[in-house]
Amino acid sequence: MTIEDLTGTIDVKAAGRRMHALAAELYPICRSITGDGVRKTLQIIEQLVPVERHEVPTGTAVFDWQVPREWNIREAYIADSSGKRIVDFRNHSLHVLSYSVPVNERLTREQLAEHIYTLPEQPDLIPYKTSYYRENWGFCLTQRQWDEVAESEYEVVIDSSLDDGNLTYGELFLPGTREEEFLFSTHVCHPSLANDNLSGIVLLAHLADALKGVERRFSYRFLFVPGTIGSITWMARNEEKLKRIRFGLVTACVGDPGRFTYKKSRQDIAEIDRVVQHVLERSEGQYSLRSFSPYGYDERQYCSPAFNLPVGHLSRTPHGQFAEYHTSADNLDFITPEALGGSLELFLKIVAEVEGGRYYRNLSPKGEPQLGRRGLYSAMGGHRQSSDREMAMLWVLNLSDGDHATWDIARQSGLPLEMVEEVAEILKQHDLLEQLP
Amino acid sequence: MTIEDLTGTIDVKAAGRRMHALAAELYPICRSITGDGVRKTLQIIEQLVPVERHEVPTGTAVFDWQVPREWNIREAYIADSSGKRIVDFRNHSLHVLSYSVPVNERLTREQLAEHIYTLPEQPDLIPYKTSYYRENWGFCLTQRQWDEVAESEYEVVIDSSLDDGNLTYGELFLPGTREEEFLFSTHVCHPSLANDNLSGIVLLAHLADALKGVERRFSYRFLFVPGTIGSITWMARNEEKLKRIRFGLVTACVGDPGRFTYKKSRQDIAEIDRVVQHVLERSEGQYSLRSFSPYGYDERQYCSPAFNLPVGHLSRTPHGQFAEYHTSADNLDFITPEALGGSLELFLKIVAEVEGGRYYRNLSPKGEPQLGRRGLYSAMGGHRQSSDREMAMLWVLNLSDGDHATWDIARQSGLPLEMVEEVAEILKQHDLLEQLP
Amino acid sequence: MTIEDLTGTIDVKAAGRRMHALAAELYPICRSITGDGVRKTLQIIEQLVPVERHEVPTGTAVFDWQVPREWNIREAYIADSSGKRIVDFRNHSLHVLSYSVPVNERLTREQLAEHIYTLPEQPDLIPYKTSYYRENWGFCLTQRQWDEVAESEYEVVIDSSLDDGNLTYGELFLPGTREEEFLFSTHVCHPSLANDNLSGIVLLAHLADALKGVERRFSYRFLFVPGTIGSITWMARNEEKLKRIRFGLVTACVGDPGRFTYKKSRQDIAEIDRVVQHVLERSEGQYSLRSFSPYGYDERQYCSPAFNLPVGHLSRTPHGQFAEYHTSADNLDFITPEALGGSLELFLKIVAEVEGGRYYRNLSPKGEPQLGRRGLYSAMGGHRQSSDREMAMLWVLNLSDGDHATWDIARQSGLPLEMVEEVAEILKQHDLLEQLP
Repeated sequence: MTIEDLTGTIDVKAAGRRMHALAAELYPICRSITGDGVRKTLQIIEQLVPVERHEVPTGTAVFDWQVPREWNIREAYIADSSGKRIVDFRNHSLHVLSYSVPVNERLTREQLAEHIYTLPEQPDLIPYKTSYYRENWGFCLTQRQWDEVAESEYEVVIDSSLDDGNLTYGELFLPGTREEEFLFSTHVCHPSLANDNLSGIVLLAHLADALKGVERRFSYRFLFVPGTIGSITWMARNEEKLKRIRFGLVTACVGDPGRFTYKKSRQDIAEIDRVVQHVLERSEGQYSLRSFSPYGYDERQYCSPAFNLPVGHLSRTPHGQFAEYHTSADNLDFITPEALGGSLELFLKIVAEVEGGRYYRNLSPKGEPQLGRRGLYSAMGGHRQSSDREMAMLWVLNLSDGDHATWDIARQSGLPLEMVEEVAEILKQHDLLEQLP
Repeated sequence: MTIEDLTGTIDVKAAGRRMHALAAELYPICRSITGDGVRKTLQIIEQLVPVERHEVPTGTAVFDWQVPREWNIREAYIADSSGKRIVDFRNHSLHVLSYSVPVNERLTREQLAEHIYTLPEQPDLIPYKTSYYRENWGFCLTQRQWDEVAESEYEVVIDSSLDDGNLTYGELFLPGTREEEFLFSTHVCHPSLANDNLSGIVLLAHLADALKGVERRFSYRFLFVPGTIGSITWMARNEEKLKRIRFGLVTACVGDPGRFTYKKSRQDIAEIDRVVQHVLERSEGQYSLRSFSPYGYDERQYCSPAFNLPVGHLSRTPHGQFAEYHTSADNLDFITPEALGGSLELFLKIVAEVEGGRYYRNLSPKGEPQLGRRGLYSAMGGHRQSSDREMAMLWVLNLSDGDHATWDIARQSGLPLEMVEEVAEILKQHDLLEQLP
Repeated sequence: MTIEDLTGTIDVKAAGRRMHALAAELYPICRSITGDGVRKTLQIIEQLVPVERHEVPTGTAVFDWQVPREWNIREAYIADSSGKRIVDFRNHSLHVLSYSVPVNERLTREQLAEHIYTLPEQPDLIPYKTSYYRENWGFCLTQRQWDEVAESEYEVVIDSSLDDGNLTYGELFLPGTREEEFLFSTHVCHPSLANDNLSGIVLLAHLADALKGVERRFSYRFLFVPGTIGSITWMARNEEKLKRIRFGLVTACVGDPGRFTYKKSRQDIAEIDRVVQHVLERSEGQYSLRSFSPYGYDERQYCSPAFNLPVGHLSRTPHGQFAEYHTSADNLDFITPEALGGSLELFLKIVAEVEGGRYYRNLSPKGEPQLGRRGLYSAMGGHRQSSDREMAMLWVLNLSDGDHATWDIARQSGLPLEMVEEVAEILKQHDLLEQLP
């Protein structure tokens, strides 16, 4: 089975429901850039696709960085004088500042206040806060919770550890007949946040699941990496493989109902930029296009000047532009099975386009070859127009100079890709084209 | 006399009438891709211009093709039981499917129907049909004629021959002082159809007639070739000459009253594309521009990927886009002397532009040369503006880096070509420019 | 002190007043392309800035030209029969056709008329006329003056000399730490005309004055040259230096209250073109942009095809487009201290931009460097947006590939230059960037 066959038969609605269910299973886990949260997340994904877990020891030098200490947390709470836990990590993984160091103290309200994070303008939501690279501790709670904190002293407990250990990331490589790769990358470091980033995780897991069983022309690499340090770690350990990356997409925020947004690679007109735009143009619904900027997710790393890889970023509503972003409102209700399924469908279409993107060379490039002799051209002449199928043959012959994939020929001719592909195959059977390896 | 002199003095109206008269003389002839129809057509043209007839034997390999057998036809009719010819080739050359094999049979109406071509939606018109590369026979008639065919049996006669012979094409080469060529090509394979393609034939015949008597900078090659197989045959036999083609236009459909349409070469910004647009911009009346596509006439062959020649297609209403296309309504009434004359005028202007397109190199490129010392610049200074003539000199000096023809300098400066040319000649006389060969 | 410090502290209004006062001092002098008028002008400027005077002997070959004879004039008048001077050079230097040969005759009104220049449509204004390269003499007067000339005979005296001597130009070179130069050029050949060209002279004098006391990265060259022959003479004598010119501006007409107009270099997208547009975009007030054309001032020479230097022309209302142009109405009232000061401010901004235009190379180009470890990135994560300052760091790191000056990074990112510069310096201090020499 090819990806094209698959794309036609996949039940996107059912897939969207499975994606949402997987997100629900992953939701309670407290992830961070290291620690058991990432391991548990990958373990659950491994039930679907054979992601390989990599453990990189604390202190490993990765370009300008070092793999940090591993953070784990068992419990955390603030209790009042009666012992009642007014904030409890068990209720929501967002309640603890990510990478909080251990604490076990009695503090006055005032002392405690220095470690409290709220969103006064969204008083019912818990914010998401991190302090990866400076030792700190803290609690994130709703403004309403904090407003009720009235006693003079509290018991504050964070039972966490920050020790030498490992950074964990998941990698799944699906070889194709070509060594050239399509890289998909998402971050796996956010705790109970659904759109950013569970949606990206479940999308790539299901995309990998779909691709693992099909014939593949290109090779596919899926990275489930903690943001920034994860992609840097992977690049540092795989620098020699970077030149194989012919297409790449970083993704996240694909579960909300917003329109698709494509942020172009730093190259601006790379093949990935053209193919994504081509697929979006033919999709229903509006979409947005953006120029590259060095902010966002791990495209920042892949597009750093030493590598400048052809990697774009494809999402629905971009990070930071939905009110629920980095708050407890980015929950399982915010992402929908329909949106997740639609995102999977779009990614499958892009892969199908690229997979179908055959490159040919015209073996009879001096004038047109005699198609009629081969039964490829209407024996009867004099028609007002050529058929689309004949037009497709002429376009393929004219543009098969080695530089245009079939989907690029479809773009330029305005003809359906299927027709371009079909006639290219026929022309190849007639020894009029050779397919480039 | 130069082409520029000629263009100014030619009586376009009278030329249009002569062109129409020539079309009328050629109209009854049954042309096809081979055979005496093409020979007779070329013989008539030879009375005007010394076209050289080339005969290429059946079976000659030309790139991916072979020269086909030669087709000739003497008579063809369908007669009813009374012997009355209800359809007769003598009445209209379109009545026979081009390249019909011989037939002499009595057929039932039903058997006959399989070989009948009509236009049900244009019931008074005879369609134009061909079957060059598959053996077949047939009659083309109006739907109204066919509707009256009511008897049960008919005598069907096509007295044709399809034998080894030759493919005939006409070629006229007018050498200039430069080896670089301007190629004009039209097809000569259509029977009694006026706009497509008699208009192209009479246009190129009269254009050649105009050019044969003038001084020529570039060389000119006129091809009167059967469509597709003719241009392929010519290219295969003249492959080493192709690199000399600096400008090229394929033409047809230049006798209807529609606006001009220019379809750009595959290169899209070749010099031919710029010069045609420049002439059209300065012409009265609207015009259309189109990107290259690999359908149309013999530009398909000239722009095939191995050659990718700078050849565009210039017509009035493009093929297939007028209701009369490939029907008996594309007759002598459909083309007008005015339209034919106007087309000749446009082509003459393009040739005049190219001929006038001198290429210079500034011999005093460091700063401006001292024009005043040579009497070329106002001795009196302080004027509010430079004169257009002085501006033209400055533009010519500034852009004469070898890459800009005079008409390109006119385009960029917005000054009249005549002025640019005039001052360039003056600057050359003062040894400030050298003309490139 | 750097130019940036200076630009922030300079009192533009006071500078404008000083510029106007300097213009007033220079105004009465009768300048031409050679002679004591230029020397006196330079002497006065030398009181402000150490301009070096160059004297190039008559007859010196400079490219296609020769240095002309030197012209000087002591007095000139037309006197009536009573001895009353009805036109007197002492009243206005425009009264004499520049480069007039000596004359001392009694002429009839009719004979005199052939040497009289007026502006019938601006009857109160004296025109500016020259005859540098053809021997002639003449008087320029108002139409009203001429209308009153009613006697039959007049005494006509021009006590001038046209002898072998020198062409004089001023040059001021301010070396910087880089050999690459910013060239500023203005013409010094106009007599009592304020906007064209005293405004340019006083602008460059004050710009040089401002730059002479500051630290300079680039080298600066100021040319005060007679139009055309002066820039040609300088180029001919300094041909080997031309390749050092990285930026260049010709200027004149910067004292009127009109909007700024930038005429791009022949290269059209040179760095000078980008930086001037960038500064204008951020300035208050409207401005005009124009493509290069080979007319105007000495950009004609600097952009001649053999050199094609990155030299644009920056003015307020362009030459020839204000009613006062080349008339006695282009006087000290036409130029204002405010406009002069505003022009100085714009030029200082451009210089400051270029000076501030540091070029860096990212020393940690593989992924992003770990800014947080260096205290450069918010220790607290999870914010909705990155701060502008962090964005600036990311942009600088991403675009510091050696090709983008800091102001180009500001252009592309849309961030303030000051921020880009600031973070670049910080990144350099952290050994994340090296500054290119």
